[in-house]
Amino acid sequence: MAAGDHELRDVFAGNVRRVRKNLGWTQDALGHAAGLDRTFIGAVERSETNISIDNIAKLAQALGVEAYELMRARSSL
Amino acid sequence: MAAGDHELRDVFAGNVRRVRKNLGWTQDALGHAAGLDRTFIGAVERSETNISIDNIAKLAQALGVEAYELMRARSSL
Repeated sequence: MAAGDHELRDVFAGNVRRVRKNLGWTQDALGHAAGLDRTFIGAVERSETNISIDNIAKLAQALGVEAYELMRARSSL
Repeated sequence: MAAGDHELRDVFAGNVRRVRKNLGWTQDALGHAAGLDRTFIGAVERSETNISIDNIAKLAQALGVEAYELMRARSSL
């Protein structure tokens, strides 16, 4: 990787934020739903965290979407 | 999560293994291409590793596919 460093983080971050806001949820609400800390949700949405696949699965389940949809640029979500 | 624990790991593992084999690559070759250790590739393909999004991106780039495709069940890969 080079120029694309953290590009996937950015795609994921944007999708999580958009789906969360579409649900009308705060970061705190999403944290509760996913069993993750609110500060962790904030870090994910700022692309600051090298999130693991297990936590990707938890967020997708809490948001009611498929994990792969959160990884996709120009997602239809 | 409950019954679905590690379900996403399994989807990812199966897709990585299939794409790698379609390329005719060993785990060692994929490791070299992705800048990751061969033993790590083996652990990923056995769903033993809680892989991070940055390493998901490295594997996708090395395999020449989009990361979201590796996360998708019944992927067309």
